[in-house]
Amino acid sequence: MENKVIFGIDLGGTTIKMGLFGTEGESISDWEIPTRTEGAGRYILADMAEAVKKTVAERNIAGQDVLGIGLGVPGAVVDESLVAQAVNLGWKDVDAGNELSQYTGFPVAVGNDANVAALGESWLGGGKGFKNMLLVTLGTGVGGGIIVDGRILTGSIGAGGEIGHMHIEDNETEPCGCGNYGCFEEYASATGAVRVAKRVLAESREESALRMTNFTCKDLFDAAANGDVVAKKAIAKYGDYLGKGLAICASVLNPEAIVLGGGVTKAGNILIDLLKPSFNKCVFPPCRDVTWALATLGNQAGIVGAAKLILDKVSR
Amino acid sequence: MENKVIFGIDLGGTTIKMGLFGTEGESISDWEIPTRTEGAGRYILADMAEAVKKTVAERNIAGQDVLGIGLGVPGAVVDESLVAQAVNLGWKDVDAGNELSQYTGFPVAVGNDANVAALGESWLGGGKGFKNMLLVTLGTGVGGGIIVDGRILTGSIGAGGEIGHMHIEDNETEPCGCGNYGCFEEYASATGAVRVAKRVLAESREESALRMTNFTCKDLFDAAANGDVVAKKAIAKYGDYLGKGLAICASVLNPEAIVLGGGVTKAGNILIDLLKPSFNKCVFPPCRDVTWALATLGNQAGIVGAAKLILDKVSR
Repeated sequence: MENKVIFGIDLGGTTIKMGLFGTEGESISDWEIPTRTEGAGRYILADMAEAVKKTVAERNIAGQDVLGIGLGVPGAVVDESLVAQAVNLGWKDVDAGNELSQYTGFPVAVGNDANVAALGESWLGGGKGFKNMLLVTLGTGVGGGIIVDGRILTGSIGAGGEIGHMHIEDNETEPCGCGNYGCFEEYASATGAVRVAKRVLAESREESALRMTNFTCKDLFDAAANGDVVAKKAIAKYGDYLGKGLAICASVLNPEAIVLGGGVTKAGNILIDLLKPSFNKCVFPPCRDVTWALATLGNQAGIVGAAKLILDKVSR
Repeated sequence: MENKVIFGIDLGGTTIKMGLFGTEGESISDWEIPTRTEGAGRYILADMAEAVKKTVAERNIAGQDVLGIGLGVPGAVVDESLVAQAVNLGWKDVDAGNELSQYTGFPVAVGNDANVAALGESWLGGGKGFKNMLLVTLGTGVGGGIIVDGRILTGSIGAGGEIGHMHIEDNETEPCGCGNYGCFEEYASATGAVRVAKRVLAESREESALRMTNFTCKDLFDAAANGDVVAKKAIAKYGDYLGKGLAICASVLNPEAIVLGGGVTKAGNILIDLLKPSFNKCVFPPCRDVTWALATLGNQAGIVGAAKLILDKVSR
């Protein structure tokens, strides 16, 4: 397999990240091309194919040495090929796998981008060595990906692992983006952390650096690090929600490892300290012994996971 | 494959159910032998092997026609062989798969009994045709099994699918059997239904057939069917808990089908009607479109699922 290569592609609404890898995941090259969303995204796959073929030609790669192309897309994916919907791209029922394979002549495997990132983290990132793993991405929203026996849990229509919309709170008056009330994302995202902190502020009379400012999640964690009493209360409360939600997931899935990614994890290992008390309280005791880790691949997780997706497909 | 047979065995604390099947799951014969739990369960596997060998001899089955033996055990199972613990049997770290294989000379695959039952229901029962399925068993407790792409989600130590101990309620003062507070099982089991009803009764001043009697889950559903107003309120509340818990599972797993089994399902399809309002309210909207079914295999689910477990193993 020493001369064999794979392409890992992470398709976003603005740019397409592309990576060329060896079969052990060693990076040979990576680059970006713009995402052309005009015309309901009809040029995207052709642009991608062009970039792949150009790389193959420039590097004098023999066609039989390309094992295939893995592709992560921001939408629901069925059967590793059909993208039912990807709103940011304008796609609806696009058979991305078969189309890209026809354009290039190489095998293609397609997955949801959050799930593919989870696969990347379980292969070479924070979850390396764990075949049963949950990746939680704490950013503007909460994304997730579940790896079972080394493979993505896709679910019926590709919504497997969308733990941001798991119901965790009965008494919520503000709706989530999905229309429901009390979703995990309403508390555990960066936006959620600010929401939780605003409520803690409103219920407290103590002085706080956060009072009267339009603060961000980073401001909140910074204030807590500086000893701000209200901010410390707020991040403890944030940890309670995070721990409760992850305890629910762990009781259902019994993962070996839970890997935290996304912008909120810039706060570092303190997040794990914050979530543990409520995690330990709520989780089914036999599932308590989980390895905690932070994601390590950053925005490379998508191309690495995509490479693994096709590697698994061609070796089945 | 027409002459090939498989054994499916469901090991319980009192009896061992045994089944002989064809490769399409057609039942050739089934019978029971007692479970000898004395001596920390040391005779169980030998007894089982004896029964298998006797059947093979009596039916003149050629050794090469036996594809293998599937076995469901009431405990945590790792790597389809090692039983970490099975309290009812007295087992601790019993390598059941390898031992039974040595006794019989046939390949063996071992799984947790609830998970194996889920596999059975997804193969030939209420979840037939669905490769992504959740089985929930509503009995004295709440058990579960998750099928992903046709295979059991085992988890790290075999506790995958133990959804009875998923945290669904923050304000609970009575502990669950596992020691936590607010587990799904505290509301959704038969015992939980009675607990919920007693609370509804205590908060109501209306006449009810349930008042001052020591009622069961069946009495509760019977009273509701007879128009008892308090019982109707109570089963509606029971449905709210059931729907909320299953919505959480569905948001994480995105199953095609949810199959309800266990004693409580003797109440019939009304259960599905009762849980739907809260399920629809709490579930992530893309995961709402689930097929609902009742389990159909009853106490045969274990031997059927065990047969499928070994069939999958030998055909991999």
